[in-house]
Amino acid sequence: MAAALLGGASVSTPVSADELDGRIDEIVAEGTSQSEVMLLAHELMDGIGGRLTNSPALHRAQGWAADKFAGWGLTNIHTEPFLFGPGWSFDNAYAQMIEPRHVDMTMIPVAWTPGTAEPIRAEIVVAPMSKPEHFDEWRGKLSGKIVLVSLPGTGDEPTRPAFRRLESKDIAERDRFEEETYDPDEANRRLERVRNPMLLDEFLAAEGALAWVKKSYRDGKLVHGSGYTHWPDLQPSLPAFELAAEDYRRLARLAKTGTPPTIEVYSDARFHDEDLEAENLFAEIPGTDRSAGYVMAGAHFDSWVAGDGAVDNGAGSVAIMEAARILSQLGVRPKRTIRFALWSGEEQGLHGSLAYVRAHLADRAAVPGDLIEDRYGWRYRWPLEKKPGHDDLKAYFNIDNGSGRLRGIYAEGNLAAARLLKSWLSPFAPLGAEQVVTSDTSGTDHVYMQAVGAPAFQFVQDPLDYGSRLHHTSADTLDHMRPEDMRQMSVVLAGMLYQAAMSDEELPRVPFPAEPNRTDPFAYDDPDED
Amino acid sequence: MAAALLGGASVSTPVSADELDGRIDEIVAEGTSQSEVMLLAHELMDGIGGRLTNSPALHRAQGWAADKFAGWGLTNIHTEPFLFGPGWSFDNAYAQMIEPRHVDMTMIPVAWTPGTAEPIRAEIVVAPMSKPEHFDEWRGKLSGKIVLVSLPGTGDEPTRPAFRRLESKDIAERDRFEEETYDPDEANRRLERVRNPMLLDEFLAAEGALAWVKKSYRDGKLVHGSGYTHWPDLQPSLPAFELAAEDYRRLARLAKTGTPPTIEVYSDARFHDEDLEAENLFAEIPGTDRSAGYVMAGAHFDSWVAGDGAVDNGAGSVAIMEAARILSQLGVRPKRTIRFALWSGEEQGLHGSLAYVRAHLADRAAVPGDLIEDRYGWRYRWPLEKKPGHDDLKAYFNIDNGSGRLRGIYAEGNLAAARLLKSWLSPFAPLGAEQVVTSDTSGTDHVYMQAVGAPAFQFVQDPLDYGSRLHHTSADTLDHMRPEDMRQMSVVLAGMLYQAAMSDEELPRVPFPAEPNRTDPFAYDDPDED
Repeated sequence: MAAALLGGASVSTPVSADELDGRIDEIVAEGTSQSEVMLLAHELMDGIGGRLTNSPALHRAQGWAADKFAGWGLTNIHTEPFLFGPGWSFDNAYAQMIEPRHVDMTMIPVAWTPGTAEPIRAEIVVAPMSKPEHFDEWRGKLSGKIVLVSLPGTGDEPTRPAFRRLESKDIAERDRFEEETYDPDEANRRLERVRNPMLLDEFLAAEGALAWVKKSYRDGKLVHGSGYTHWPDLQPSLPAFELAAEDYRRLARLAKTGTPPTIEVYSDARFHDEDLEAENLFAEIPGTDRSAGYVMAGAHFDSWVAGDGAVDNGAGSVAIMEAARILSQLGVRPKRTIRFALWSGEEQGLHGSLAYVRAHLADRAAVPGDLIEDRYGWRYRWPLEKKPGHDDLKAYFNIDNGSGRLRGIYAEGNLAAARLLKSWLSPFAPLGAEQVVTSDTSGTDHVYMQAVGAPAFQFVQDPLDYGSRLHHTSADTLDHMRPEDMRQMSVVLAGMLYQAAMSDEELPRVPFPAEPNRTDPFAYDDPDED
Repeated sequence: MAAALLGGASVSTPVSADELDGRIDEIVAEGTSQSEVMLLAHELMDGIGGRLTNSPALHRAQGWAADKFAGWGLTNIHTEPFLFGPGWSFDNAYAQMIEPRHVDMTMIPVAWTPGTAEPIRAEIVVAPMSKPEHFDEWRGKLSGKIVLVSLPGTGDEPTRPAFRRLESKDIAERDRFEEETYDPDEANRRLERVRNPMLLDEFLAAEGALAWVKKSYRDGKLVHGSGYTHWPDLQPSLPAFELAAEDYRRLARLAKTGTPPTIEVYSDARFHDEDLEAENLFAEIPGTDRSAGYVMAGAHFDSWVAGDGAVDNGAGSVAIMEAARILSQLGVRPKRTIRFALWSGEEQGLHGSLAYVRAHLADRAAVPGDLIEDRYGWRYRWPLEKKPGHDDLKAYFNIDNGSGRLRGIYAEGNLAAARLLKSWLSPFAPLGAEQVVTSDTSGTDHVYMQAVGAPAFQFVQDPLDYGSRLHHTSADTLDHMRPEDMRQMSVVLAGMLYQAAMSDEELPRVPFPAEPNRTDPFAYDDPDED
């Protein structure tokens, strides 16, 4: 029905202001009174649950999403693979203190560490170590032990409310243009973060330790289970567990004052190595003008598995899907193709969106034989070379800041784009989304697009309890998604996509990146620094 | 050594202001630089853990505390029993969703419900019911099911900081004299709260249900496990579990939109019915003037068992013990006996302290054959009769508001006592404890003492994260006790006890209670009201 309204729109006729307003009204109506976003969320989070990259659960979710896209009439539904490493999953695991008394501890196996076959029972040793420089102190002391590798620390004192919405002034504070800093050492830090757990595993295995245990980085009996040893041809030897901070510190205190406790750990974790490639999933509403390029919205579909991957990032994923449903249901025929992307491998380092960038936008030389260096050092290698499709991407909107409503958009340092973004956002001021701020954001799938000069943006979202207790935790379930927020998010996203796809004017682009100068042109190398 | 300093103090010589100041200084020094309170906390919380009334763990803890008291040279260390019902404990339990997918749910068996012998696997039915009026709707629909009896509700939005200290103005707001309300219906509400779970158990068992499940009343994967079916001659039939709110609501959502999930529950819970009497534990520093009466400090030693019973109320318990240690270490010879009380049965309804009141202070007629009515209706029966020891109790200080430092004291409606309390508290102003406020407080072991006109008080404490995430929860572990706060608490308590025991002046007492008039002398009974 709605499709007939726009049936006469042709390739070259600009949409009138009245038509645009009418379409926005329809989007709001469809996305609020006819919303399906919470039912999508329910099927994904409750029905399928946590979705670790390349795991059976993520594959199930991808099949489910592809079916939904197909049912709504989207086109060009397809996946694009990238080398990742095996999947990993577990069903049953536990950690119990056996001596000096029985305690069933709150735990999760660390992702991409092996299961235990049989339960492992052993005395613990508290040996805080995070990098090779720490290993020597513990050499010869770990054989037959379960090794607690985190510093226990003390309980936290959370003095900010767990649940928070932004005031206008909070948003305005984000209107700060900052020079991009260029720090090649950042690449080394990233590499170490990924490689040190492997070196730890090697060291502990060589020492005859039986398993290792780390402390949750949040108090309140929440666990996360994040781990990074998923690379092809890599097989860590030792089972590893993350314990709730309270359970970890109890063990550490007992070990400090008396006989080290004996604990028993078990995990049926397994690797899925039948296919080492993970996939991004795409679907489209085709544009009427093939020369006009495309606009895209994306969210990572993969999650950690302590919870159901709800606000990180089932929320963003079902908002993307609901925006697709709304626009498809209204029968829009946009000038530019609207592409919907559900990324994978985000949680392990934005691998899926980086693969997309390298395939479609711009790439640097690969590092043969060292996939880790190839991935984490990618941003710091020069030259960068444009792919033919680079200029076709006219706008990218990423959602990955929880389930809070959209309050505005980050121009991400692209000052020239702010005016147009402001105009597209203006219809949604009554829904609470109106501020355009300059700051740039990091840590999710728009980053590598920005790094190659594509116009890629994130929204400002109400934080709710994302950072305080949900991000990657066992409490990240649908319970903490707000239906009104999710509906608003879907509606605003659909509206932004539609306007970006119809706009006569393209978003201004930043210059294609060249190797940056040193920040301080007068600096000498310090011989004492690595 | 310190004992020698006071060796010359005799029965009738008032302590001089200088002597008193010196003693306070010693208390502060001993309780800070020589503190043992956190080591006591460690032995109790980490070493023994949660202490359900009349359970083996509480018995171990009582033996441990008695040994400590004896080691410090306290006297008259003894227990006083009261009829309670069996103990209860469990080591292993789990709840898993089996269909539509595997989820290991966060749970705890409900206290004083039986174990399962074998794992129970069945489909759930969501049948919210809390009292007999709700049962009819579900008759005939529960056979062979695991019944979810709570309304699922939606996720919480905590907009106050989890961790909080009081400003002076927060404390001043508690300086409110309020008339005591007398509401006999309160007795009925209490009775129903205790009896309804038994009626629920009977109904569900008669219907052929296999087990029941309730929802945690806190979000964030915290569980509590509180239950009240501990009475002698009572044996509930069905195993019961409390699920984390997130896990409970996931089940409920799935049941609402599709085939009800199948879950499996297991618990090795067992009753300990070799002795149906629970015990309070006492220790004393004897007074030099037997006619001067005694002062007392108390905390409940029992806890729930989801965590280690740390801030509720291991904290109060070890503060009581540390105050005893400090005063004993200093060799004080107080005029009045100082009695230290570690109550039991508090969590199930202040049973231990009520038993003390009935034995030593004042009592009402018993209700033969109905222990529940006898206990929960006690406060509302008349006449009340004084026991010979009633006037001997000159001051009672209760600690049961978490591990936050003492910031002042509630005069608990006893306006005449405020001046003396203020004077005793004044040395501790530099430690942050100085305000005396009029409001009364409820819900713990001083309540029944107040109810018989004894001068019984609680301190104002910094709340920290007691109410937000620790009270009765699985996160109630030593991690969330602040060492500086615990040392301050022990010092101030020791100082208050010492001054109360030495004071020439006694705390003013409220009149011995008589049956109150109706609040509204002109009210008629409403025939529509029960």
